[in-house]
Amino acid sequence: MVLIKRLVIIGVGLIGGSLARALKAAGAVGEVVGCGRNEVALRRAQELGVIDHYHTDITEAVAGADMVVVAVPVGAMEDVFRAIGPHLASGAVLTDVGSTKGNVVTAAQVALGQLPPGFVPGHPIAGTEKSGVEASFAELYEGRRVILTPLQTSSAEAVGLARAMWETCGAQVTTMSVQHHDEVLAATSHLPHLLAFGLVDALAKMDESEEIFDYAAGGFRDFTRIASSDPRMWHDICLANSEALLAILAKYTAELDELAEAIRRNDGEFLMQIFQRAKQARDRFCG
Amino acid sequence: MVLIKRLVIIGVGLIGGSLARALKAAGAVGEVVGCGRNEVALRRAQELGVIDHYHTDITEAVAGADMVVVAVPVGAMEDVFRAIGPHLASGAVLTDVGSTKGNVVTAAQVALGQLPPGFVPGHPIAGTEKSGVEASFAELYEGRRVILTPLQTSSAEAVGLARAMWETCGAQVTTMSVQHHDEVLAATSHLPHLLAFGLVDALAKMDESEEIFDYAAGGFRDFTRIASSDPRMWHDICLANSEALLAILAKYTAELDELAEAIRRNDGEFLMQIFQRAKQARDRFCG
Repeated sequence: MVLIKRLVIIGVGLIGGSLARALKAAGAVGEVVGCGRNEVALRRAQELGVIDHYHTDITEAVAGADMVVVAVPVGAMEDVFRAIGPHLASGAVLTDVGSTKGNVVTAAQVALGQLPPGFVPGHPIAGTEKSGVEASFAELYEGRRVILTPLQTSSAEAVGLARAMWETCGAQVTTMSVQHHDEVLAATSHLPHLLAFGLVDALAKMDESEEIFDYAAGGFRDFTRIASSDPRMWHDICLANSEALLAILAKYTAELDELAEAIRRNDGEFLMQIFQRAKQARDRFCG
Repeated sequence: MVLIKRLVIIGVGLIGGSLARALKAAGAVGEVVGCGRNEVALRRAQELGVIDHYHTDITEAVAGADMVVVAVPVGAMEDVFRAIGPHLASGAVLTDVGSTKGNVVTAAQVALGQLPPGFVPGHPIAGTEKSGVEASFAELYEGRRVILTPLQTSSAEAVGLARAMWETCGAQVTTMSVQHHDEVLAATSHLPHLLAFGLVDALAKMDESEEIFDYAAGGFRDFTRIASSDPRMWHDICLANSEALLAILAKYTAELDELAEAIRRNDGEFLMQIFQRAKQARDRFCG
């Protein structure tokens, strides 16, 4: 069943590309129009069959769209919203895939003035450390979570279509407030990325860094895999969700201080308590 | 070629069991004798063909051994060394698989008084987050690093046999000083484990912890996988290598403080510099 007649994806990378592939595979979309600044990438997306056409002019791209998905880095959202604003058909749904939501809503408010009823912020919790349309695949969202953060201005129809779109991709869709989304994601995603980047950098700066990495085993590789993620994207996210990220980082460094103190005073009982609780939680939730 | 006529493994778990399997598979060992406190586990190891016989009495176990491998948690080494001491054949090689070395050497000094020429501390950098003989397999050491930290008291013959044993398992053997080993491993293994345990615990303590873990994606699973490791073993390691661990932890928290400061003052350039350097290092060393 065709849910969306003309789908416009602004930013055809891993996330936008995988969405297009999944909707095409489900026969849920009439035409997919790509839009972006990098024409080489857009042409490649067309060759791969991910999109049917493309425009580098955002005005042309969004004309007649019933669904516009903004899949650019969160730092670039405001400019995109500003360009789209005057050309969005009434009744069109506008959503995004940003990893932070408070910042995206603020960007939309600044760029659009009044928020249109079709605007429904969203965040598919999926991805790999790879990026680009070449890495996209139709199954990326199967069984994964998508969080929608509907606003007071969002119409029920718009929320319904955004939900139906992601469910068609196999995702499990839930809704929550913008602020709650940003707190939850700061804890499970933004903080771990910051910690991994920080650790690899701290080791890379040491004199014996070559040797140190030489003796890294599988645990280290897993632990630091997310430090291979796109620096620009994570730079954007850390600044966009700074408040929630700094709050959870403060909790974490307090925990590290307690651990250091316990090691210093040789308090094995304290360490065992923390390590056991952590293993239990990890086995239970990620087992 | 039979390298070792009578191999005694004290502590037949993942590490000791995999060593026995690999040496048997290579036809490099005459008989393998298991020793430990848990008779049920030893019987299971025998049933699995990992060991040929077992003793729960350490004195009987080490009699006539030409190689004794101590594969117990580092916190239990001193007692084992004390029990072995008087019964070790002259010319027998004594080695261990502990993740820390300074502490093991101290334990040996305390327990044995004079260090025997056959004593060669060692550390195979291999393992999974699983433990126990059931998880052991002959290929665990293939292509993995084994660090030997020979002492001034170690004989060249003993070092040679320890090296040959690990190379027979497919490992790449290098030697370094005890202190250097402990610094390198604090950075690549002990610190990441402490950080992962600490993060999962910090989140598990939060009110919304159930929900938080619910939205954790693949990156979080990889990042926290090592928090599913054996708490007792890591408790031992953190206390055994406290000096090097606290030193690298201090460097790391200084890095986190700088990152927090940069986020607070919205310094994107600083973040990009760190994230890019980290990605580059990770891709280069672990790619």
